[in-house]
Amino acid sequence: MKIALAQLNPIVGDLQGNAQQILKTAQQVATQGVKLLLTPELSLCGYPPRDLLLNANFIAEMERALQQLARDLPPNLHVSIGLATANPTAAITGAKPLFNSIAILAAGSIQNIFHKRLLPTYDVFDEHRYFAPGSEANYFTLDGIKLGVTVCEDLWNDEDFWGKRSYLVNPIAELAEQNIDLSLNLSASPYSLGKQQVRSAMLKHAAVKYDRAVLYVNQVGANDDLIFDGCSLGFDRSGELICRGTAFDRDLIIVEFDQVTKDLKPANIQPQPDCADAEIWQALVLGVRDYIHKCGFQKVILGLSGGIDSALVAAIAAEALGAEHVLGVLMPSTYSSSHSVTDAIAVAANLGIKTETIPIGELMQGFDRTLESQFQGTEFGIAEENIQSRIRGTLLMSMSNKFGYLLLSTGNKSEMAVGYCTLYGDMNGGLAVIADVPKMRVYSLCKWLNREREIIPTNIITKPPSAELKPGQVDQDSLPPYEILDEILDAIVCEHQSPSQIIDRGFEPQVVARIARLVKLAEFKRRQAPPGLKITDRAFGTGWRMPIAAK
Amino acid sequence: MKIALAQLNPIVGDLQGNAQQILKTAQQVATQGVKLLLTPELSLCGYPPRDLLLNANFIAEMERALQQLARDLPPNLHVSIGLATANPTAAITGAKPLFNSIAILAAGSIQNIFHKRLLPTYDVFDEHRYFAPGSEANYFTLDGIKLGVTVCEDLWNDEDFWGKRSYLVNPIAELAEQNIDLSLNLSASPYSLGKQQVRSAMLKHAAVKYDRAVLYVNQVGANDDLIFDGCSLGFDRSGELICRGTAFDRDLIIVEFDQVTKDLKPANIQPQPDCADAEIWQALVLGVRDYIHKCGFQKVILGLSGGIDSALVAAIAAEALGAEHVLGVLMPSTYSSSHSVTDAIAVAANLGIKTETIPIGELMQGFDRTLESQFQGTEFGIAEENIQSRIRGTLLMSMSNKFGYLLLSTGNKSEMAVGYCTLYGDMNGGLAVIADVPKMRVYSLCKWLNREREIIPTNIITKPPSAELKPGQVDQDSLPPYEILDEILDAIVCEHQSPSQIIDRGFEPQVVARIARLVKLAEFKRRQAPPGLKITDRAFGTGWRMPIAAK
Repeated sequence: MKIALAQLNPIVGDLQGNAQQILKTAQQVATQGVKLLLTPELSLCGYPPRDLLLNANFIAEMERALQQLARDLPPNLHVSIGLATANPTAAITGAKPLFNSIAILAAGSIQNIFHKRLLPTYDVFDEHRYFAPGSEANYFTLDGIKLGVTVCEDLWNDEDFWGKRSYLVNPIAELAEQNIDLSLNLSASPYSLGKQQVRSAMLKHAAVKYDRAVLYVNQVGANDDLIFDGCSLGFDRSGELICRGTAFDRDLIIVEFDQVTKDLKPANIQPQPDCADAEIWQALVLGVRDYIHKCGFQKVILGLSGGIDSALVAAIAAEALGAEHVLGVLMPSTYSSSHSVTDAIAVAANLGIKTETIPIGELMQGFDRTLESQFQGTEFGIAEENIQSRIRGTLLMSMSNKFGYLLLSTGNKSEMAVGYCTLYGDMNGGLAVIADVPKMRVYSLCKWLNREREIIPTNIITKPPSAELKPGQVDQDSLPPYEILDEILDAIVCEHQSPSQIIDRGFEPQVVARIARLVKLAEFKRRQAPPGLKITDRAFGTGWRMPIAAK
Repeated sequence: MKIALAQLNPIVGDLQGNAQQILKTAQQVATQGVKLLLTPELSLCGYPPRDLLLNANFIAEMERALQQLARDLPPNLHVSIGLATANPTAAITGAKPLFNSIAILAAGSIQNIFHKRLLPTYDVFDEHRYFAPGSEANYFTLDGIKLGVTVCEDLWNDEDFWGKRSYLVNPIAELAEQNIDLSLNLSASPYSLGKQQVRSAMLKHAAVKYDRAVLYVNQVGANDDLIFDGCSLGFDRSGELICRGTAFDRDLIIVEFDQVTKDLKPANIQPQPDCADAEIWQALVLGVRDYIHKCGFQKVILGLSGGIDSALVAAIAAEALGAEHVLGVLMPSTYSSSHSVTDAIAVAANLGIKTETIPIGELMQGFDRTLESQFQGTEFGIAEENIQSRIRGTLLMSMSNKFGYLLLSTGNKSEMAVGYCTLYGDMNGGLAVIADVPKMRVYSLCKWLNREREIIPTNIITKPPSAELKPGQVDQDSLPPYEILDEILDAIVCEHQSPSQIIDRGFEPQVVARIARLVKLAEFKRRQAPPGLKITDRAFGTGWRMPIAAK
């Protein structure tokens, strides 16, 4: 039996558009003898729909879109559709009013409705806010094959694999007891570095443990801060990889299930990104492209300081949108070094993007004069440094407002962590492209980018990083070296470690205490940051929920 | 038996400070013959601790602080302490690793640990992210009295009262079956308009239904966007109110439980705010005071435009912090009307706050000249309007950075909803004081404020609202009258209604469609807004989780 895995890229909330994507794919595979088409979790509304789910009319429209799809789909094909459905007994049982469901459509009607059983509520996930858990093992029979259906997290609770349970029940173990022939998992699993390897190991483990082939179809595309990497997978009963979908792009994978051996036959295996930098690069390119296009924009603007962060963001944007849709703006001040201009021009030339130069000297003087009576007798300090950054932020937003560019902000995760950035200045933007990329990874990505030819000018990579907001300033005046800073930040942010635990790892107590304090103090800035593309286990975004007025 | 209800105002995460508050209160009541002291939900760490709970060291410190309190507290007093405790079987059962617990301390040790059973995950609540639900009815016996213990939400699932269930179990019904003598509820229930009446009716209903007296102690104080109103309550077995704590302030209430009648005796009943405006006013004053002080600031700055929003925010700030800690800044442009200056000066004089005047004309010209080559041949539009707002925002932040003021932003909920505000301009600030106050309520609050003498100059209330960003501009050039706008917005934001439902209520289809579209389009601005004090059922804040790149 031929089964197709449709690695789709839905737009959140776009029921008609997403239904059309599914319909076209179904029509395409129906001509190829496919019997079953699998689409990702919540494929009809896109994942994550978030509080759109609180609108009763949205749920009703989703139900109508499903009914319409049932009528429109090729009758001989079974299709799995992910959608939210009403929980009719919610008011009586006290459970949440929706299910995260999978509908199996065929022959013009809804054949089955299955409900997701394990609802994640960690990191970026809020599924308990909306959904009640399903209570039954989900399976159906097609051409004599018993197919077990799980939804994303349902697969992520194997005690043997994780060494602990995260939920009471284990849906795949229950399905194995039901003697299913093939395990299907429909997912919308957000990307983070290394997650592809974890999923692969987990699926292989499940296949071997239960002696059942597994098919895993994942959403692709970026929705706000979350990037979905696709990389749909199939493993046969012996745990051999039999198919893999493209990373970070749409794909349609057709596999064959042998009804005699009850196993999947080898199919097409797309290569994975060959290193961490390649993987992150592809993630960020997709993240930028989808955010810009799904927000209805075509072109972006960013400040080009001559530093490494803006150079990297420009390169990502040029790859994502085409160089002709990227405008870099140089905004030199009297504190700017000569190389800041030449380096910015050089990277723009390498990328083929346009530039504008808008010097800010006159506006700096204008602010000095305007604030003369208030500031008299005070020393040059943070206030004056921030004014420069805010002039630049305002100029970029002016260009954005006037000409319809979406502004990209260029701050990295290390800066965002310690607040080495100006709120309403360089933090301005619709999307913070590298807000989850630590500074050391920024360097690594730029070196990787230069592996064949120089894209990021070498001087940008080798010169000491500087905000250039006062004469001779370099980042290391106020921060420890990034090698050390990034390790401490990883311990605080991703590993939830306390200062004492980090000091025990051999870092200087004063440095650790200072960094922990800066991370705490910068909370108010991060609260007002644009969405940042998540590439690590823990990003400053929907999965980071810290109080501000706290001790 | 004497019982004390301590309506405490903890600082989130400040374990030592919060423990000290509890200890002092305990020492005070121990001398008054009190046998049992009740403190609110999570009184040791403050509510909501949010992702501080993910730090294992924080949980361990909380445990140590509890042990220390047990040793330090007066030995003859029983004290209820709210804290997060570890769930030792989490890895085996797959439940979350913490409980939201109540410890009963007495005689130098921990007598009981109870766990909250109903964990809210709607609106601003994320308790399932951190906590496992308790599975048992919680009670203990003191002086022969059987005391049932519930935590906040545990009380909010009575089918008879709500007409539906929101959770499977009803802890107060289970406690009634256990024949408790008195029901204790320890809460941290965030304020919204009218909630005091709902709680009162619900508690009265519970008292009568189960024929048991109820004591309800609520946290007071503001933590980020959430305001806790206190208003602790007691009802006797017949459903008569026997005590009420102060609204929006710390309080300590002592009541007596008669062991013969098994009922509470009448005690002190603090008056409630006498109208909605008085209630909101007190909420906002507390919200500003706590945010500023808990963030470690003493003084605030804000732009005084001569309009009604900034006038109201200035009045709230002056009441919260003292007029001497509030600086109003006038930043007139060539588009400013003469009354904008005179009205701003008048309100400052009425409030007794200082003002500075910083004209922005030179900077407007500076931006025009700086952007001359880029903007040539274009018409004056949104870009130029926003530049004015961003100049003002930058000037205010400069004053904030230079002199240590926290900047208050002054946008109202109606503006925030439709995006009638400038990101990085008038939206700048550490706290958005009236971001959850609809424009019609702004008017109503100002009229209420003027009930005895003129605080908000009449001209500010009667003149047509205007952003004054171009000649002759008034809000109603771009928006429907606020009477209509606010009704439509309430339907969209608080009632989750779709455009068709709102049109069915009699509003013009084009107007409704346009407003719904503006609300959607402004999502990217709201994502970057400062925390806003929540006063309605649904605020744009932690309880509003909408996608941006969506349809």
